[in-house]
Amino acid sequence: MLDIRPIILINGILLSFLGVAMLLPAMVDLAVGHPDWKVFFAAACTTLFAGGGLALTNRGYRGGLSVQQAFLLTTSAWVFSTAFAALPFMFSEFKLSYTDAFFEAMSGLTTTGSTVMSGLDTAPPGILMWRALLQWLGGIGIIVMAIAVLPMLQVGGMQLFRLESSETSDKILPRATQVVGSIALVYVSFSLICALCYRLAGMSTFEAVAHAMTTIATGGFSTSDQSVGHFESAFVDYTAVVFMILGSLPFLLYWQAVRGNAKPLLQDSQVRWFFMFAIGFVSVMTLYQINTGVHEGWMALRYALFNIVSIMTGTGYATTDYGLWGPFAVMMFFCVMFVGGCAGSTSCGIKIFRFQIMYSALTMQIRRMVHPNGVFSAKYNGRVISEDITASVMSFFFVFFVCFTVLAFLLSSLGLDLLTSLSAAGTAVANVGPGLGDIIGPSGTFAPLPDTAKWLLSLGMLLGRLELFTVLVLFLPNFWRA
Amino acid sequence: MLDIRPIILINGILLSFLGVAMLLPAMVDLAVGHPDWKVFFAAACTTLFAGGGLALTNRGYRGGLSVQQAFLLTTSAWVFSTAFAALPFMFSEFKLSYTDAFFEAMSGLTTTGSTVMSGLDTAPPGILMWRALLQWLGGIGIIVMAIAVLPMLQVGGMQLFRLESSETSDKILPRATQVVGSIALVYVSFSLICALCYRLAGMSTFEAVAHAMTTIATGGFSTSDQSVGHFESAFVDYTAVVFMILGSLPFLLYWQAVRGNAKPLLQDSQVRWFFMFAIGFVSVMTLYQINTGVHEGWMALRYALFNIVSIMTGTGYATTDYGLWGPFAVMMFFCVMFVGGCAGSTSCGIKIFRFQIMYSALTMQIRRMVHPNGVFSAKYNGRVISEDITASVMSFFFVFFVCFTVLAFLLSSLGLDLLTSLSAAGTAVANVGPGLGDIIGPSGTFAPLPDTAKWLLSLGMLLGRLELFTVLVLFLPNFWRA
Repeated sequence: MLDIRPIILINGILLSFLGVAMLLPAMVDLAVGHPDWKVFFAAACTTLFAGGGLALTNRGYRGGLSVQQAFLLTTSAWVFSTAFAALPFMFSEFKLSYTDAFFEAMSGLTTTGSTVMSGLDTAPPGILMWRALLQWLGGIGIIVMAIAVLPMLQVGGMQLFRLESSETSDKILPRATQVVGSIALVYVSFSLICALCYRLAGMSTFEAVAHAMTTIATGGFSTSDQSVGHFESAFVDYTAVVFMILGSLPFLLYWQAVRGNAKPLLQDSQVRWFFMFAIGFVSVMTLYQINTGVHEGWMALRYALFNIVSIMTGTGYATTDYGLWGPFAVMMFFCVMFVGGCAGSTSCGIKIFRFQIMYSALTMQIRRMVHPNGVFSAKYNGRVISEDITASVMSFFFVFFVCFTVLAFLLSSLGLDLLTSLSAAGTAVANVGPGLGDIIGPSGTFAPLPDTAKWLLSLGMLLGRLELFTVLVLFLPNFWRA
Repeated sequence: MLDIRPIILINGILLSFLGVAMLLPAMVDLAVGHPDWKVFFAAACTTLFAGGGLALTNRGYRGGLSVQQAFLLTTSAWVFSTAFAALPFMFSEFKLSYTDAFFEAMSGLTTTGSTVMSGLDTAPPGILMWRALLQWLGGIGIIVMAIAVLPMLQVGGMQLFRLESSETSDKILPRATQVVGSIALVYVSFSLICALCYRLAGMSTFEAVAHAMTTIATGGFSTSDQSVGHFESAFVDYTAVVFMILGSLPFLLYWQAVRGNAKPLLQDSQVRWFFMFAIGFVSVMTLYQINTGVHEGWMALRYALFNIVSIMTGTGYATTDYGLWGPFAVMMFFCVMFVGGCAGSTSCGIKIFRFQIMYSALTMQIRRMVHPNGVFSAKYNGRVISEDITASVMSFFFVFFVCFTVLAFLLSSLGLDLLTSLSAAGTAVANVGPGLGDIIGPSGTFAPLPDTAKWLLSLGMLLGRLELFTVLVLFLPNFWRA
């Protein structure tokens, strides 16, 4: 039998944190005199009470986590946090149904950025702050999970990023717990600098803080229905681009850079590939716009840069409805959605290192085909990697597309049209935000979808955010027997 | 340097065969007194002259083929045969451009079944016979390649089907050359029985023979613009279903069954999975039609059975425009397109055994994730398979979707709409035949597409038919250096 006490304990602690976090929007609404502050205060009390209760009844538990416990903890932490984070959405002036509230909270904590809410421009500041805060907390949660938990669980090739290297010569990386604190510091600093830049670019202080939180988390919630397009400012656009990119690189490398060793950041092959991909996509999209006359010159570059980076990093801001640029652009944005950023960042999707490993494994195989007696091996960042890791990565690709396809099927069986079904499934599993088409495209919302679709998409976001396997193993009967 | 003499020699022999084959439609047209017989006769002479010349100048070459030579031979054989097989289309009364003629010939020899020709119902018999013959020859060519060549080249996991088993206990399988003759006999017998059934079902003798040839080859060319729907006969539909399925099972197992050992055929896990997939898809599609009121009761089953089996096996006949059944049906047919039949058959697509191996590898990995110290291994047909094979199969999936995506992108950049681009790319790489949408759907043709699109799709068909890697290795600079 699985001992669930440590899982309940940690969930309790996390919920208590979440409860405390709800006091921030309460204070914001109180400051402007909006009655929703009571909603946040009540939700904070409820969450603190539940979290505190769970934690206290299981206090005193000692010892590490087994692999099974770690799997169950990761998934349950996201689900429970979402369940409570949804409360303010239900009782605020937006009065969302629990389905909508859960969807919005899941979209927040997974840093997806799909929304069921419109009328944001006139919304009270508390609820806007809560949406931004959810993404910001989700973002740091994900980095911690990617650095400290997933490598241990060997999920989809993440074992590549184990902190304790087996090579004794490699002592630059101390233990996870110490690293996490330093990385949180980097995260907070980036957020502050980003907010400052946005403020200088012309946003109000509130808008600047809210957008900074969702930019660095590559989340994508905005304070306007028109997303970042609302500001119509090149300075805002370029600030967003810089910090979306910063949010998509491996945070571990920043920390090493801060400690005076910038070499890993500058020489990391994942970072270089990320820029290669981004530059490639932006160039193609810029040329396409100029060629087809959608936009000219610098405007084409600005639109391509902002929107491609936003979709590729899984942020999901938009400055225009790129769905209207023609079939090639639609296909491009659809594919870019799946790419994602680097492992150990706040970004989502398949992630760059998996493409690198896939490429290396393929090259190796084709060589082996031509020279059946040669000895070849796949590499990552200049080092030979085990067949184990390549197999993990390849399976990830496969499972990713299976999840995407099954989800798209289920959505279309609810009567949604083809482009909506496909792009909703993709945007959920890749944690991007907006879909394509009239309903869920950059200028629409997910509100008109049937309730079943919203629950399915919430599941999709959870799957994508936790690298699929972390959730899927729980459905294995074998998991519970052991 | 690669010695290309044996490659030229075998290409010459194959072209000579093709030239002889052209005499058949010549005779058919001569019999009905249609002047196109001269076209076929001239094309036959040209092809025989070219083939004979190539063969004779390189005659006397002895010795086996190296791996490199085998790769180059396989791809070049398909390309040269197509180049000459296109001739009759150019000079017949249809007067196709060389682009269209090449596309039609490639679609024939790869047993795809996409067509640029309309007005088939009133076409002279010679050209209809030539289309059927191309698919029939392509079909046997593929079986031979899958049994004798691909396993040696270790393409996409085909090494699983090596004839010479390393286990000494397994002596049921003699050498490839002996097997091929027997399998050709099975192929001819099936074709004859199929023609007989079609004749009894009410087709004319000519129609019966032409359709039998394209059914057993899972090709899909018809003698009518309305494909098999033209006959409006349940007997015809069910005959087609039976023989499309027979064409999609491993021919090696028939041969063993004929020799008195039916056990492998009945117990082969690939065959069982094939039926599981087919029954699953047909059931879903039947229920969907009944549910949405598209068709009722038995008609729903008949339409689902025929069209799903046709698309899944990569045949490409149609009895109705299933593109009009709604978004769920469109998505279903789009996905079924990629499934394919069994290895060592005439069918195409990803193929069942790859799904089996993927499933087994995934189960193993998830188990390993939960029990990091356990020992697990992937299996196929009850036997443990090497990591090498799983890696080959996984790469195949990845490369398949990369080829599909790149092709779809290129097509959409030519201005084709989304559904046309995606389904054209899919139908080409999976060698199915019809696409989806107004232009290339079951009631349309590929004629309106721009020339560039036709060349790209021809390349897609070739890639798909030769299991991708066989063609792709030729683009590796390393290949030519060795």
